[in-house]
Amino acid sequence: MNVLTYKPIGVVHSPFKEPKKVPNQAAASKGVIGTIEVFPEYVEGLKDLEGFSHIILLYHFHLIEVTSLTVKPFLDDHLHGVFATRAPPRPNLIGISIVLLDGIEKGILYIKDLGIIDGHSTNRHQTLHSQI
Amino acid sequence: MNVLTYKPIGVVHSPFKEPKKVPNQAAASKGVIGTIEVFPEYVEGLKDLEGFSHIILLYHFHLIEVTSLTVKPFLDDHLHGVFATRAPPRPNLIGISIVLLDGIEKGILYIKDLGIIDGHSTNRHQTLHSQI
Repeated sequence: MNVLTYKPIGVVHSPFKEPKKVPNQAAASKGVIGTIEVFPEYVEGLKDLEGFSHIILLYHFHLIEVTSLTVKPFLDDHLHGVFATRAPPRPNLIGISIVLLDGIEKGILYIKDLGIIDGHSTNRHQTLHSQI
Repeated sequence: MNVLTYKPIGVVHSPFKEPKKVPNQAAASKGVIGTIEVFPEYVEGLKDLEGFSHIILLYHFHLIEVTSLTVKPFLDDHLHGVFATRAPPRPNLIGISIVLLDGIEKGILYIKDLGIIDGHSTNRHQTLHSQI
């Protein structure tokens, strides 16, 4: 198997329109409200998600054009392996965020403290489980 | 964008060879030792990962053939939306596990308490950060 193919199940709508405006740390996203629009054909999969306080979002870093195996993280002077960081320009452009779920209505997830850029494709989300 | 394409960066080697033998709960994997073989072209990205106690693994559920938007989780009598569960047969076959990193040698990650089936493709891994 040389290639894995996934289909976006929705899209992130966020007030952050460009990468430089997105906070590096989750705490800096406090109070930011966003939505995730889940495409109609996947809405059935949201049943019972509303009972959870947080969800794990996986999304595609759609604006990254150049990837690198070593990166200099924010406020760091040294190069590190990209897998030892959360930096986006990794070989597979998948982001992970745990966000606060404020409600669901007609396939729209209302999210608090969202630190994700507008337009990201969501390719999977699942609830935060107690073992994490 | 209708399709997202990723390339496996490695493969999971685990004593669990079939889905029914994989524990449903992380606690039941205690003591299980496995390895993740990172392909040579991605080994540079592992620099400094060794300093972390845990890593977040994203992997492809390569044995799932039929997906479903509603599932009955282990020890549950009711159907739930797949996104409200950790069940594998989701629209995008991506698994997430947080596992204990025991060491790295020549592109091989030694993992303790591994609850993942043999042969899964790893398409991203990153360190566990304190905000989780």
